[in-house]
Amino acid sequence: MKEINFITQNRGKVAELRVTAKQFDLKINHIDASYPELQADTLEDVVRYGLAYCQNKFPAPFIIEDSGLFVDALRGFPGPFSSYVYRTIGNSGLVKLVGDGAPARFKSLIGSYYNDFKLFHGQVKGRIVASRGRSGFGFDPIFERDGRTFGEITIDEKNAISHRSKAAELFVKWATTVI
Amino acid sequence: MKEINFITQNRGKVAELRVTAKQFDLKINHIDASYPELQADTLEDVVRYGLAYCQNKFPAPFIIEDSGLFVDALRGFPGPFSSYVYRTIGNSGLVKLVGDGAPARFKSLIGSYYNDFKLFHGQVKGRIVASRGRSGFGFDPIFERDGRTFGEITIDEKNAISHRSKAAELFVKWATTVI
Repeated sequence: MKEINFITQNRGKVAELRVTAKQFDLKINHIDASYPELQADTLEDVVRYGLAYCQNKFPAPFIIEDSGLFVDALRGFPGPFSSYVYRTIGNSGLVKLVGDGAPARFKSLIGSYYNDFKLFHGQVKGRIVASRGRSGFGFDPIFERDGRTFGEITIDEKNAISHRSKAAELFVKWATTVI
Repeated sequence: MKEINFITQNRGKVAELRVTAKQFDLKINHIDASYPELQADTLEDVVRYGLAYCQNKFPAPFIIEDSGLFVDALRGFPGPFSSYVYRTIGNSGLVKLVGDGAPARFKSLIGSYYNDFKLFHGQVKGRIVASRGRSGFGFDPIFERDGRTFGEITIDEKNAISHRSKAAELFVKWATTVI
């Protein structure tokens, strides 16, 4: 069976990726480690820097993943800084700032290193609403798509449509052809 | 005359530091270069990472500086991410988020490398208000102290009380004794 290492300290991300990988007979090994995350305006810059750092420290093939919530009217805020913004101003702060109904998108970017670096994008469009539901994590309860927030749907439902699952599918399909 | 290199792409910061340095007969050489800024919750982590990166790339003794606006009620938001938050949600966004009168502080951290790393802190307390004045830059017009915002005072007045000048004074006094 083909194998790849996933460098992350987030077990939830590993579990999500394994759902997709299993369908393609790809094994995901979890490397529970961190790498420096750069202050940058795009996920691409964060992931490229992380890949370069990891290249000489972890066995290839490996991947890292970064994701964020991008509010169109706020030039993408909080974007790559979503984790920090969630910890400081929280869901209520973001709703207060952008207003109810503001268009937004979740983006995920998987960066892989095998013989070279490669990036895989995924996104899902929705809008910011007052918090509803307790599923998921982070900004999920204030992100609505098709009338329900990511806090109101099951993990399987989320996996079927989420930004991360889209990036994961692109990556897994690529990985199973080249590794 | 004693000399030190200041690694920054912000000419304004160099000009401010030279005001303090001149009083102590210290020469500041500007190295117009960048270094990776880490995503971290504290200025200390950002500056330590930057110092380690710069250590083998630039001639010692050198310094870097990072600063930010910390709103007490928002666990320090936007803190080390002030530059990004200013570019995305702006002054009006921050006022909307925190409300008029919210206690806040500007912090500056100078990190130096000579034979070892050393950090110098400066801060000034105030509160967030609706934008007034056009002096300074960034969040200056919404930061009020003693009845006036940093957008309503001259550069000399700002230099006399600012977070950066406080850190600069600590650093310059140290530098002139050890270099």
